[in-house]
Amino acid sequence: MPMTSADPIENLATLIRCPSVTPAEGGALTVLAAMLEPLGFTVERMVASEPGMPDIENLYARIGTEGPHLMFAGHTDVVPVGDAAAWTHDPFGAEISGGEMFGRGAVDMKGGIACFVAAVARHIERNGPPKGSVSFLITGDEEGPAVNGTTKLLQWAAERGERWDACLVGEPTNPDQLGDMIKIGRRGSVSGTLTVRGVQGHAAYPHLADNAVRGVIALTDALMHPPFDAGTENFQPSNLEVTTIDVGNRATNVVPAEASASFNIRFNDAWTAETVMAEIVRRLDAAARDEKLRPGRAPVRYDIKWAERPSHVFLTRNNQLIASLSGAVEAVTGRAPKLSTTGGTSDARFIKDYCPVVEFGLVGQTMHMVDERVAVADLETLTVIYETFIARWFGDARS
Amino acid sequence: MPMTSADPIENLATLIRCPSVTPAEGGALTVLAAMLEPLGFTVERMVASEPGMPDIENLYARIGTEGPHLMFAGHTDVVPVGDAAAWTHDPFGAEISGGEMFGRGAVDMKGGIACFVAAVARHIERNGPPKGSVSFLITGDEEGPAVNGTTKLLQWAAERGERWDACLVGEPTNPDQLGDMIKIGRRGSVSGTLTVRGVQGHAAYPHLADNAVRGVIALTDALMHPPFDAGTENFQPSNLEVTTIDVGNRATNVVPAEASASFNIRFNDAWTAETVMAEIVRRLDAAARDEKLRPGRAPVRYDIKWAERPSHVFLTRNNQLIASLSGAVEAVTGRAPKLSTTGGTSDARFIKDYCPVVEFGLVGQTMHMVDERVAVADLETLTVIYETFIARWFGDARS
Ligand SMILES: [Zn+2]
Ligand SMILES: [Zn+2]
Repeated sequence: MPMTSADPIENLATLIRCPSVTPAEGGALTVLAAMLEPLGFTVERMVASEPGMPDIENLYARIGTEGPHLMFAGHTDVVPVGDAAAWTHDPFGAEISGGEMFGRGAVDMKGGIACFVAAVARHIERNGPPKGSVSFLITGDEEGPAVNGTTKLLQWAAERGERWDACLVGEPTNPDQLGDMIKIGRRGSVSGTLTVRGVQGHAAYPHLADNAVRGVIALTDALMHPPFDAGTENFQPSNLEVTTIDVGNRATNVVPAEASASFNIRFNDAWTAETVMAEIVRRLDAAARDEKLRPGRAPVRYDIKWAERPSHVFLTRNNQLIASLSGAVEAVTGRAPKLSTTGGTSDARFIKDYCPVVEFGLVGQTMHMVDERVAVADLETLTVIYETFIARWFGDARS
Repeated sequence: MPMTSADPIENLATLIRCPSVTPAEGGALTVLAAMLEPLGFTVERMVASEPGMPDIENLYARIGTEGPHLMFAGHTDVVPVGDAAAWTHDPFGAEISGGEMFGRGAVDMKGGIACFVAAVARHIERNGPPKGSVSFLITGDEEGPAVNGTTKLLQWAAERGERWDACLVGEPTNPDQLGDMIKIGRRGSVSGTLTVRGVQGHAAYPHLADNAVRGVIALTDALMHPPFDAGTENFQPSNLEVTTIDVGNRATNVVPAEASASFNIRFNDAWTAETVMAEIVRRLDAAARDEKLRPGRAPVRYDIKWAERPSHVFLTRNNQLIASLSGAVEAVTGRAPKLSTTGGTSDARFIKDYCPVVEFGLVGQTMHMVDERVAVADLETLTVIYETFIARWFGDARS
């Protein structure tokens, strides 16, 4: 008979049945606590608040008091179900059909949590308590504004003296099959909105006006071309997308005075958030003053408003951590995972300020989609990978 | 004692006091009829209707039954007063202050009508009824959608057998002083809206998406550059303005699937509405397929919706008409007016299908503005110019 919580399929079904659509806790942290306490974890709940935002429940659990200290990080909140009628199975039913378990959060990322709980349970069953500490840092605010989640939970724990040697984030990292990809870093992300101010006028007298649309096209074009870089050893080229342009002028014979555009850049380790913002301003200023674009005209007048809190780029260079995880993946799947820095941001960007962090989880194909689901076989495989990683990491750390 | 309606100042005051804010008749056509009937004009009122639009009152008045037939065209409707509190005089008071008469429509274009009525009255007083015919074609829908105005009134009159040899439109044509400028043609105008359809996605995975903003920037850039032409003998260069771009995407991490842009081109006689539309489509298609702009991508998908009813370009080449008017202006003001085709469209674009048309009126500086006003002296001068023109035109026409 397996030990409590050693079955990832059961763990995941229990978690999926909690409707923890962000920002609701939905019972998910309670059932997680019920899985961890019997294993010997000390579980604490931490509620984070911010004016004008819903309170968020978070969880921190630790077993062991000594180092080395391995943290597993993740979130139990899930995105909304979307078009509920389009689901072929109850999004909170955890039904298994055709070898797959269906439910919101199946891969992003209740599945990752379910497997790590099972892996720890099996590790303890086989080896006794870890030779060091293992902790779970689980937030309910990853899919929301991420203000009352991982950042505050890390701070709260650090203020209580918690220190970690390494962290594994259980987000779905594999594009196609389990074993494809470990994330060892993430690009940074900066967003901003620029507003161009011209002079309104009549379309028949453009020389008396200053069409803000001309300005915004010139400025956004300068943001997109040339490329920011050609990529670095560990990163893709930085890429900027203009995500919206808005003028709202309904009169076809009127030249508008104002136009705004928003953009987002995903930048690699050739930049910091600060240098990439400076480069953006440099490009905008150069385009605003470009005589070729505006013969005989004053510079484009614009201002820029940066979105709060840029995401900083990071690259984990802890070879022991990467080798333990990569070796475990290869030992179990027979495939050498790609060490990647692609994709969006994750809470790893906050954790890297506390300890080296890597990410490995399920196959992400159905995340955020209708009929989110996970191959039941993958749950068992990921559990074995995690268990192998834990053994290797503690073994390596001690050697 | 002057004959009825021979005083342009009195005529204009009477007209300004009618609050004929488009589409309201406001009594303006009634007082105009009362000025014309005593002079011997047969006055007819014509109401034009269109489903979903307010009925519009129009007026047609003629004196004489023989040719040659000179038409004076204009409108009694005025634009709204705008910020009423900002006016220093009642916008419908026709108050005179500092040598200027204040009121909405003072220059655009109740003033032109007031002067032409006075000019005809003086002509009849001095010479008896015109040696031919003079008519007034006056609409109440020039500042509005221009659907129930000049076009329908021309059709209605033509169906009743009316034929004209020449037309003078009394819109304000002078930029700075009376005598600056006669309009002998107008650029055409075409508007359209293009909608680019891409593929929505996440800003971190732009290769999986197709950012519609990139498409709309590429297409609008192709509309603006290079210039359509360098101008022609009688016309400025054609000019295209992008009047709005709208996406409406509020999520900075989302690459939007759709973006739209509207544009307006003022084109000269190197083009027709049809050829300029074809050139626009050619530019859009070329940019949509430009490999340089979209390496390895399918062409930009877009569609274009043209605004109804393009304004056709025209140039009046009737030397007799131009010379009569230009000569009258120079004889009275001592200044040779510029023969121009600049500015926006006017109802002359409809009239040119019936007879040669030129435009001359007051100084346009305050049109559509708060404190619209006219120098009282200009009213007398314009009346003399109009009277001289009438005499010359009938003289020339008979010679
Ligand atoms: Zn996630
Ligand atoms: Zn007008």
